[in-house]
Amino acid sequence: MKSYKKELWFNYPKRRGYTNITRELKKCLTESEIKEGLMLCNAMHITASVFINDDESGLHSDFEKWLEKLAPEKPHSQYAHNGYEDNADAHMKRQIMGREVVVAITNAAFDLGPWVQVFYGEFDGKRDKRVLVKIIGE
Amino acid sequence: MKSYKKELWFNYPKRRGYTNITRELKKCLTESEIKEGLMLCNAMHITASVFINDDESGLHSDFEKWLEKLAPEKPHSQYAHNGYEDNADAHMKRQIMGREVVVAITNAAFDLGPWVQVFYGEFDGKRDKRVLVKIIGE
Amino acid sequence: MKSYKKELWFNYPKRRGYTNITRELKKCLTESEIKEGLMLCNAMHITASVFINDDESGLHSDFEKWLEKLAPEKPHSQYAHNGYEDNADAHMKRQIMGREVVVAITNAAFDLGPWVQVFYGEFDGKRDKRVLVKIIGE
Repeated sequence: MKSYKKELWFNYPKRRGYTNITRELKKCLTESEIKEGLMLCNAMHITASVFINDDESGLHSDFEKWLEKLAPEKPHSQYAHNGYEDNADAHMKRQIMGREVVVAITNAAFDLGPWVQVFYGEFDGKRDKRVLVKIIGE
Repeated sequence: MKSYKKELWFNYPKRRGYTNITRELKKCLTESEIKEGLMLCNAMHITASVFINDDESGLHSDFEKWLEKLAPEKPHSQYAHNGYEDNADAHMKRQIMGREVVVAITNAAFDLGPWVQVFYGEFDGKRDKRVLVKIIGE
Repeated sequence: MKSYKKELWFNYPKRRGYTNITRELKKCLTESEIKEGLMLCNAMHITASVFINDDESGLHSDFEKWLEKLAPEKPHSQYAHNGYEDNADAHMKRQIMGREVVVAITNAAFDLGPWVQVFYGEFDGKRDKRVLVKIIGE
């Protein structure tokens, strides 16, 4: 069994937003030289997400509006978590969008379907954060 | 390490609904001849889901009502994504229900608990779509 | 390839709540003697969750309030599932919080980021329930 690990760093300039990381993940796969196996890609922080969806700016603004409806940021005082913090909403948004994706690898390529793109989702940005990439296989 | 891959095809006759795929996954496991390892099962499309829950028709109608409350389909015009498309709600419903499940394999069987069933969840049907099954192990 | 499996038992004294299981998972990893690989940890029941977030009591009370807003328990009669059961809301809460986490293992340790803790989330407690831990690697 072979294994590969890499950490990708982000410092998103706004509180919330989405970064397409599919191309970087493909580079990781090439570097790993693994042809059959599984890739785990997860946010290493609890106010961020890694998820798979569409790279379409209209949808991303819909997500922003929708997550603000389901778990509004403000007023900060509505959440017990927000004493020293102001990011309780970010912890909730990350539960809806998810922490991780697992992607299959066959013949040295990801098994992705149509329009599938992998995103880093930031819900409490303007600071250094990491995504973990771990690949195991042969 | 052994690995196995299969794509299951669906053409759900309505916009939304759930298909129990547990039996097909068990066939895949038998075909794979893998006795110890992990199975990844994921929707290959971004408006569909693979998830684990109960095979109970009342619950499925509750899910339909609930997802329509959290991410209503109509009016289509409420979503920026819906220019050429009308399926923004399907992208959201899939985030709540999830893209994938990973299931452990021990002694050539899935480690499933009571009432556990695996479902394909369709949120934008009436077209050909696929689910990926990838098994790695020994 | 090495593999390891363990079931952790819970009997949560209330209907809903969260238990930090990070320490028990680290014991499993030590027992497994696996240095490179992946751990799958999932609820074996469909009204419970395994998820990663913050071990902060304010946040946990925010989660309780939030999940009750998105998928309220009562009135029980609002759900078609609640004939012999009264736990339809628990099936929904588990979809939002998720069934499973997959955690990378490097140099015999979990690749966890800052503040990352793994939780068992109970949404229909006062009964025996299990969490599965499966580790594969080398």
